[in-house]
Amino acid sequence: MTAAPLIESERIRRDIRLGRITGTSRGLAQGFVQCNLAILPKAFAFEFMLYCQRNQRACPVLEVLDPGDPVPHMLAPNADIRTDCARYAIFRDGARQADATDIRDLWRDDLVAFLIGSGITFDGALEKAGVPTDRYRWVLRSTRPTQPAEPFRGDLIVTMRWLTPQQAIVATQVTARFPFNHGPPIHLGDPAAIGADLKAPLFGGPVPPMPDGLVPVFWECGVTPQSAAENAKLPLFIAHAPAHSFITDLPAERLMAW
Amino acid sequence: MTAAPLIESERIRRDIRLGRITGTSRGLAQGFVQCNLAILPKAFAFEFMLYCQRNQRACPVLEVLDPGDPVPHMLAPNADIRTDCARYAIFRDGARQADATDIRDLWRDDLVAFLIGSGITFDGALEKAGVPTDRYRWVLRSTRPTQPAEPFRGDLIVTMRWLTPQQAIVATQVTARFPFNHGPPIHLGDPAAIGADLKAPLFGGPVPPMPDGLVPVFWECGVTPQSAAENAKLPLFIAHAPAHSFITDLPAERLMAW
Repeated sequence: MTAAPLIESERIRRDIRLGRITGTSRGLAQGFVQCNLAILPKAFAFEFMLYCQRNQRACPVLEVLDPGDPVPHMLAPNADIRTDCARYAIFRDGARQADATDIRDLWRDDLVAFLIGSGITFDGALEKAGVPTDRYRWVLRSTRPTQPAEPFRGDLIVTMRWLTPQQAIVATQVTARFPFNHGPPIHLGDPAAIGADLKAPLFGGPVPPMPDGLVPVFWECGVTPQSAAENAKLPLFIAHAPAHSFITDLPAERLMAW
Repeated sequence: MTAAPLIESERIRRDIRLGRITGTSRGLAQGFVQCNLAILPKAFAFEFMLYCQRNQRACPVLEVLDPGDPVPHMLAPNADIRTDCARYAIFRDGARQADATDIRDLWRDDLVAFLIGSGITFDGALEKAGVPTDRYRWVLRSTRPTQPAEPFRGDLIVTMRWLTPQQAIVATQVTARFPFNHGPPIHLGDPAAIGADLKAPLFGGPVPPMPDGLVPVFWECGVTPQSAAENAKLPLFIAHAPAHSFITDLPAERLMAW
């Protein structure tokens, strides 16, 4: 009897677990859903889930594990979320500690893991539809407040892409097909209308002058719940490190009927 | 200074609150989202929300109120969920008590109210697309298990409609536009394939022989979480009484981009 061959997402997670892959998850296992991670004590889990529900386009919760359980039974039943992210961001009382590549030593029976859809998941579908995803893409803080669920609150974080008008129309249609993964844009045009802070992008590097003929298009971003959890200054909060998302076994196209 | 005129949903809720309307909410304030209610102690709220997340096509949570708060700030900011349903079903330790038309005397600071999308919301959109909704519609128990979140578990409850093949195709397209309100069908054809119990419909009356030329089409039903909460035999659980849903101020079409 031989074991079933690994699928691409399983192969990548094995290489991450063995330390063979340590970098970003962007471009890895394209076509599989990638998730942001939020891991926190059960004492705060209801309020965090409430926050995600109230801001669900920014915080599309795809799976929540039972307290103490590190296995995403629905999205990646052979995975362990304590070892299968390439890099973890760790916060104590709201202050970021040194990153880790394995959090087994921090694990506790009362920790609850949330898997939240990442915008990276879109990339394959956008590329297939002729919308480039490899440049002109930033994560920005806006001044639009989210709906709080105390102690979780904060401003909406957005992904900005610069697209041609035709690409903007196509990208709206493509992303609207993923209602459980941010869905269609929330804004297009003037960044100031939502207070998008072009001066201090969270990811994507400095924003250059925009070439003629492009339009800024904005999606709600899965960094939002992470930002709210940081604001809450929990005794312990663990997330994936930026751009090091958790890779699931779910084909992105399946999210359309999730 | 005069008060703003009431919109249709507000008028209906006022008449319910005043005891002028005591019957079903089906057909009332058509075009506004209707919600199933689930009200339970905070001690069980995280697990119930987990259950809804794991079975979200059956349990589309549209709003969750803070513990002790009876006002749905997002969906109906002028409403009070303790008085604005025409009839409430009350369960103690899993046993149904006498129905009530007002639950203010049962209210406690630790009660959490969940508003869950109801299939009734579809009816206006289906009718506009030429799919009749006034007959051949039943709520049935299936043998398909839901994903548990202890103490919440149970079989999937489904809505069955008998449609022509052409209506089935149109209804699939129309309901797919409401991903946050059950979405498209989960099955069509042989009821036995999902163990749908035609002998004991939960609502809709006895199932007659099916006329030639029709096909059974099945949607996940918002009675599912209520059934799971009954199974959990909580000390106290309050729901809307069947077919007496809570009427919100949200136009159904808005749910497409919810």
